[in-house]
Amino acid sequence: CPGLRRRAEIPLARRHRQRGCHPRQGFCHTRLIMTPRNAFYAQSGGVTAVINATAGALIEAARAHPDQIGKVFAGRNGIIGALTEDLIDTSLEPAENIAALRHTPAGAFGSCRYKLKSLETHRAQYERLIEVFRAHDIGYFFYNGGGDSADTCLKVSQLSATLGYPIQAIHVPKTVDNDLPITDCCPGFGSVAKYVAISMREAGFDVASMAKTSTKVFVLEVMGRHAGWITAACGLAAEEAGQAPHILLFPEIPFDETAFLARVQESVERYGYCAIGVSEGLRNPQGALMAETGARDAFGHAQLGGIGPMIAGLIKGKLNYKYHWAVADYLQRAARHIASRTDVEQAVALGKAAVELALAGKNAVMPAIVRLSDAPYRWEIGVADLKDVANVEKMMPRHFITDDGFGITEACRAYLAPLIEGEDYPPYRRGLPDYVRLNNVAVARKCPDFQV
Amino acid sequence: CPGLRRRAEIPLARRHRQRGCHPRQGFCHTRLIMTPRNAFYAQSGGVTAVINATAGALIEAARAHPDQIGKVFAGRNGIIGALTEDLIDTSLEPAENIAALRHTPAGAFGSCRYKLKSLETHRAQYERLIEVFRAHDIGYFFYNGGGDSADTCLKVSQLSATLGYPIQAIHVPKTVDNDLPITDCCPGFGSVAKYVAISMREAGFDVASMAKTSTKVFVLEVMGRHAGWITAACGLAAEEAGQAPHILLFPEIPFDETAFLARVQESVERYGYCAIGVSEGLRNPQGALMAETGARDAFGHAQLGGIGPMIAGLIKGKLNYKYHWAVADYLQRAARHIASRTDVEQAVALGKAAVELALAGKNAVMPAIVRLSDAPYRWEIGVADLKDVANVEKMMPRHFITDDGFGITEACRAYLAPLIEGEDYPPYRRGLPDYVRLNNVAVARKCPDFQV
Repeated sequence: CPGLRRRAEIPLARRHRQRGCHPRQGFCHTRLIMTPRNAFYAQSGGVTAVINATAGALIEAARAHPDQIGKVFAGRNGIIGALTEDLIDTSLEPAENIAALRHTPAGAFGSCRYKLKSLETHRAQYERLIEVFRAHDIGYFFYNGGGDSADTCLKVSQLSATLGYPIQAIHVPKTVDNDLPITDCCPGFGSVAKYVAISMREAGFDVASMAKTSTKVFVLEVMGRHAGWITAACGLAAEEAGQAPHILLFPEIPFDETAFLARVQESVERYGYCAIGVSEGLRNPQGALMAETGARDAFGHAQLGGIGPMIAGLIKGKLNYKYHWAVADYLQRAARHIASRTDVEQAVALGKAAVELALAGKNAVMPAIVRLSDAPYRWEIGVADLKDVANVEKMMPRHFITDDGFGITEACRAYLAPLIEGEDYPPYRRGLPDYVRLNNVAVARKCPDFQV
Repeated sequence: CPGLRRRAEIPLARRHRQRGCHPRQGFCHTRLIMTPRNAFYAQSGGVTAVINATAGALIEAARAHPDQIGKVFAGRNGIIGALTEDLIDTSLEPAENIAALRHTPAGAFGSCRYKLKSLETHRAQYERLIEVFRAHDIGYFFYNGGGDSADTCLKVSQLSATLGYPIQAIHVPKTVDNDLPITDCCPGFGSVAKYVAISMREAGFDVASMAKTSTKVFVLEVMGRHAGWITAACGLAAEEAGQAPHILLFPEIPFDETAFLARVQESVERYGYCAIGVSEGLRNPQGALMAETGARDAFGHAQLGGIGPMIAGLIKGKLNYKYHWAVADYLQRAARHIASRTDVEQAVALGKAAVELALAGKNAVMPAIVRLSDAPYRWEIGVADLKDVANVEKMMPRHFITDDGFGITEACRAYLAPLIEGEDYPPYRRGLPDYVRLNNVAVARKCPDFQV
């Protein structure tokens, strides 16, 4: 490794150390001494309104350091792209397209739901990763996802030690569920929170208008199978007692039908109507997901298709109020048109921070949001150890939920409110958001086929 | 009626004529000679993102003519407010609140679903209306609604002739269904159209990201029980073949399961995924509403709660694709946060025009949108006779739907595109749209009670 012999090339020496080169032992990973190693970036799990903002910021930050990071290869469909050597050469994407990722929702390179199994049972998968990474001289692994993805990223970070392939693995947080530990919040959540709070406020105005002669109950089903963060965000729509929503149903609180129906009736009698936010993950007192209990409606029909209509049907059957219900589903997490500016800024900052951590030689870490104060809201970027992040779910603290289990507390509001602050409108063309569709040019394959 | 005796008071004389005063016969409705008659305004049927914009513009226009229109009394909950003498004195509402109606969705005075029956069978209702109108010196009746409301308004317009009470009834169009005749489009529709087109584009980006290992089919259920205008608007999301949505299911086209499933499969195989927009009013070949057919899913369970999940379940059962579905429901018609600027401007123009028609002495008319050209889009306000509007539904012309029944034609795009043009963002406070809640001070009652 001749680069190490001259004092003038000390920065290179550091790079060699990062790569695990040992020139005195005649062992060097570097094929071209002046070529910095490439990066792999992939998106994982459910996508969000701002994961592309992270991607764009990360790619731009990498492009700003051509002496230290070569090309950024994106995995087509997450880690699947690495396993099948289906890589996208982002260096061929025009700068304006990369910039437009900031305002484009969903996963521009494709995402996947795929979790690497343990090294002990699936050694071939890890050897395949190394084969592909080596073939494309990949020294940086950026994985943009939630809890499962953090686990995958942690496993990759161990490839250096366990299989002797030097790589720095940096996890970049993303999940609408807001359930990653350590980081104060997760990019993607703030925008969903803003969307559901706005939707609840708007639908609340609507049902209030109709309640005299028509609809008295409105139910909005939102995401969050385990943690009630999104359900809680619906609560931001109400600023005074009596405003929608009147009831929230959290996955953390077992469904109490009697107390719930009494509250619905009270709300209708007192305010004229009742607006309800319900988590898709609502559970019965036995701990089973309500949406999967095969519950029957008032007419004895099996209910399928969501807890929203199920709750509405229950109210109709027991209280005979006319109802409407909505299921936001993908609309909530893809709603870049009304993204939270705070969320977008944090998504961008984390993408940039991931590159800075890589340049600083870090491995098995995740940049995280650290809250400095609620009001005025101040935050900075910190660093979390990936081993503390993987496979840990952060649920709503009980003191964020009111004692009766149907609402959010002031402490919860203080936490949530800054996350939906600010708007960051995308550009429009012909009345529609002008989202970018990347060219996504494939990198030529160098390895044999591999079946996932 | 001394006001008629002097030449200088000819404008007053015209007002007396409008009121049906006959001073020579000693018959005058005017209690204070210099007091112009009051106006009644009410909102009817399903509310929209911009019906309040019409209300605000109408009230402001009336306020600008204090010599010709007295106070504007709003009916609390539509015509119910007139029947029960539950009137709101809008003159007590600060100007900034009235101005804020422009950016506030739903019905600020409450709406109703209530259609006046015929004079022959329900004469008491009409006599009650006259009792209330006379007690509050109401000479102008503005009714803001859709087809049913036009019928109510037409009946009120006939009170002069049939029951001898002089009143000018002006219908102001509003309906997300876009199914009123004569007017080129209906306020409220453009904003729903924009919302569903954006939602479809965003969800399409989402499912495209997930399709490799997870969701392959996305179904969005939208409003429009009889006419497919909103379903058609979903189609604006796609600008090239292969983009979402891939299939639209219109209420005008009987559901062909075999052709539909073949198209779903083709889309998944060709593009990797399939996004579908379906009208709540989809009908089977026998003409029955699919959502009410008690259809069973692939597992033999009765399906309730919307055509969206029903279609998704059908695909799962027959093609075994993983699916997601959303039901936009009230979210679509209350989504003032992403209203079409064109729609807002037309809603405002129609509210203003309604007052101008009243000042011009018109009765039994409706201001309407007249399209002058598609591109550049130009429009003006025209006038329709209410008898041509009431109880007529404007369906999608067949040539707006592609021959296969699953998409929209270029002619349809040319019609729809201008209606979603432009954004008109509401102001925000603490991350949420700052919608106004009016004081809605009640007018003192003068009449005996009346049961509706």
